[in-house]
Amino acid sequence: MQTELSRQLGIEHAVFGFTPFPAVAAALTRAGGFGVLGAVRYTSPDELKRDLDWMEAHTDGLPYGLDVVMPAKKVEGVTEADVEAMIPEAHREYARDTLAKHGVPEMPEGEEGGWRITGWMENVARTQLDVAFDYPIKLLANALGSPPPDVVARAHDLGIPVAALAGSARHAQRHKEAGIDIVVAQGYEAGGHTGEIATMVLTPEVVRAVDPLPVLAAGGIGSGEQLAAALALGAQGGWLGSVWLTTREAEMHSRALTRKLLAAGSGDTVRSRALTGKPARQLRTEWTDAWDDPEGPGTLPMPLQGLLVAEANSRIQRWEVEPLLGTPVGQIVGAMNSERAVQEVFDDLTRGFERAVARLRGVAGGG
Amino acid sequence: MQTELSRQLGIEHAVFGFTPFPAVAAALTRAGGFGVLGAVRYTSPDELKRDLDWMEAHTDGLPYGLDVVMPAKKVEGVTEADVEAMIPEAHREYARDTLAKHGVPEMPEGEEGGWRITGWMENVARTQLDVAFDYPIKLLANALGSPPPDVVARAHDLGIPVAALAGSARHAQRHKEAGIDIVVAQGYEAGGHTGEIATMVLTPEVVRAVDPLPVLAAGGIGSGEQLAAALALGAQGGWLGSVWLTTREAEMHSRALTRKLLAAGSGDTVRSRALTGKPARQLRTEWTDAWDDPEGPGTLPMPLQGLLVAEANSRIQRWEVEPLLGTPVGQIVGAMNSERAVQEVFDDLTRGFERAVARLRGVAGGG
Repeated sequence: MQTELSRQLGIEHAVFGFTPFPAVAAALTRAGGFGVLGAVRYTSPDELKRDLDWMEAHTDGLPYGLDVVMPAKKVEGVTEADVEAMIPEAHREYARDTLAKHGVPEMPEGEEGGWRITGWMENVARTQLDVAFDYPIKLLANALGSPPPDVVARAHDLGIPVAALAGSARHAQRHKEAGIDIVVAQGYEAGGHTGEIATMVLTPEVVRAVDPLPVLAAGGIGSGEQLAAALALGAQGGWLGSVWLTTREAEMHSRALTRKLLAAGSGDTVRSRALTGKPARQLRTEWTDAWDDPEGPGTLPMPLQGLLVAEANSRIQRWEVEPLLGTPVGQIVGAMNSERAVQEVFDDLTRGFERAVARLRGVAGGG
Repeated sequence: MQTELSRQLGIEHAVFGFTPFPAVAAALTRAGGFGVLGAVRYTSPDELKRDLDWMEAHTDGLPYGLDVVMPAKKVEGVTEADVEAMIPEAHREYARDTLAKHGVPEMPEGEEGGWRITGWMENVARTQLDVAFDYPIKLLANALGSPPPDVVARAHDLGIPVAALAGSARHAQRHKEAGIDIVVAQGYEAGGHTGEIATMVLTPEVVRAVDPLPVLAAGGIGSGEQLAAALALGAQGGWLGSVWLTTREAEMHSRALTRKLLAAGSGDTVRSRALTGKPARQLRTEWTDAWDDPEGPGTLPMPLQGLLVAEANSRIQRWEVEPLLGTPVGQIVGAMNSERAVQEVFDDLTRGFERAVARLRGVAGGG
C-alpha cells in the first residue's frame, strides 16, 4: 500500500509504528513499514546510543525514525529538583496513602525504578537529539507540540523530515507555520495524550487545515479495515502505537500487564490526567480512579504530576500490583486478544487493507 | 453505492438519514437514500398522521422509515405528572435562576412550548406506532435500546425490519438476541445519546458481535470520505443525522440556532446529561455548562431531567436566547458551514464516496 508519502520515504507500506521497544521498531521497518522508536523512556544518552546501534544492526539499511517529547517553550534553568519542590505535600501524601491501601512495597534496596518520564524535559530531549543526529534517522517526530525552531532547522539541514502530533485543526495549523513536514492527527480514541475530537472527524479537518502537507492518522487503528478507513479520510498513512504492545517483540515491564492488555475491552480505557497532568488515554485502573476521584486532591499540571507519580509507577510495576497496573493504550485494546509476532500483525494489516478496498470497490461499482 | 442491505431495502445508495423533519426525510428518500423520520417530537397522533400523509404524497412510493424512542422496560401506570412530582425543588430553582440570570422571559400567554420530549414515554410511543403501522413504512428504528418484544413481533408480522442503536458491542449483542434486524453502531462523536467508544473502534466491534446482521455506522459521518471510512470498517451503510440540520429543508426552531450550527467548530459540542439525563452530544452552551458545573446541583436521571428542562428549552428557543440556545449535534458540526439543499448534500456524499474509493484503489494497487 503506497501513498505519496510512503514513496517519498522509500517504504513499501504506509504503516508507521510508534513504539518504545527497539525490537518492535526494527521488525516494523524490516516488514516494509516505518518503525519509530520512542525516546522518552531513556534516562541517559548511552542507553539511547546502545539501542540506536542495535537498530542500525537490525534494519538492513531500511528507514526508521525517532520520537521525542519536547516542549516548544524553553524554561530556562529549571531543574528536576525545582519541579519536585513545587509538588504540594497533600498530593504526596495521597500517593503514599493510595499505595499503602493496596499494600505496595517500597523498591528493593539498590534497585532503581524503571519508570522515569524525564525525557520531556527540554535539556534531556536535547541530549537525546545530540545522540540521534549522529545516526541516519529518516524521521524526527515530536509528541508535544512543534519542536523548537532551531531543532527543526537542524533536522532539515540533515535532510530529516519532522513530524508533530496534533489533536485539533488549529494545533495542526500551528505545526505547519512552524515548518513541520508531516502532521500526525491524534484522535480521541488514541492511546497517550489526546484531545476530544475522534479520528473520523479530526483526520479530514487536519488534512484540510495543513494542505498540502501529508497527514498520518492516529487513534483507533489496529486492523487493515481501520487503516483503510484512515486512508479514506485523506490520511497518507496510519500511525499505530497500541497494537504493538502485545506483540512478542514488545519488552513489557511485566507479564501481568500484558495479560491485562490481552483481557481488556474497548471500554476499559480512560482519558485521564493521572499519568502526566495532561489528558492521556490509558488503561483504567484503581490508580487512575484515585486521581480522577472528585473526593481526592485531583491531578497537578504537567510536568508536576509526572514527577509526583514516577516512583509510585515504578513500585506498582516492580511488584505487579494488578489493580493499579496500567499503561497508555488506545480503545483498540479491545481487539488486542493474542500475542503475535510483529510480522504477523503487519501482514494482517496489509491483507485486511486489501480486503477492505476490494469490498469498497464492490460497493462503489454497485456489484 | 450498493450494499447487501441497500439492495434488500430497494434503495439506490446505502445512506440512511435520520431527521425530525418530514421535508428532509422525503428529500432523502427521493434522492435515492433512506429517509427516517424521528417521531419523538410529536405530542399527538394527529400531528404524526398529518406528517406521514405528507411523506406518502412526497416520496413517489420509495421506501422510508420511522424512528421512535421507546424504553424496553415498561413502567406500569406512571404518568407524566408522577414523574414531575419526583423532581427536587432545588433543581427547579436552579433552572429558574439560570434562566433569570440570562433574562429569559416567560412564554407568551396562550402560546404552547414547542419543546416536549414526551415521545420517550412508552404509552406515547405506542400511540405513535398505532398510527405508523397504518402506513407502508419500510423500517422501524428505536433510539433507546431494543423495542419491547410485542412491538418487534408486530413489525415483523407486517414485514417491517427493526433497527436499534447501540453504543457498545454488548449492547448490540442484546439487540441481536431480541430479534432486531439491523444494528446502528452509534459512536462517541455522534449527536444525541452516545457512549464512549469512537466510531473507528465501535463499528468493527459491533459488526463482529452481531454477525451476520447488517450494521449501519453512525457518528462522524458528514462527507463521502467519512462514508467510505464507515464502509471500510464493515458497515453496510451510514446513518447520518447531524448533517441535515443545516439543509434548506430543515425546519429549525430559530434562525439563531441555524447560525450557531453554521459557525460551530468540531470542538464546540459536549457529551452532557443536561438534555435528558443520559449522556447526549449537543452544542455546548451556557445552559449545558450550568448543568455540568460541579458547583451546581447536577443533572437528574432520565426521564426526570428531560421533564425538568422542557419548559426552559421552550422559552430559550422561543426568545432565541443565544448563549443558552443548543441542539443535539455531532462533532461533524465543524464541517457544516453552508445552508444547502438535501439533494446537494446527498450528491456530495455519493461523489465524495466514489472519489475516496478511487484514491484507495490507487493506494492498494501501488499506483
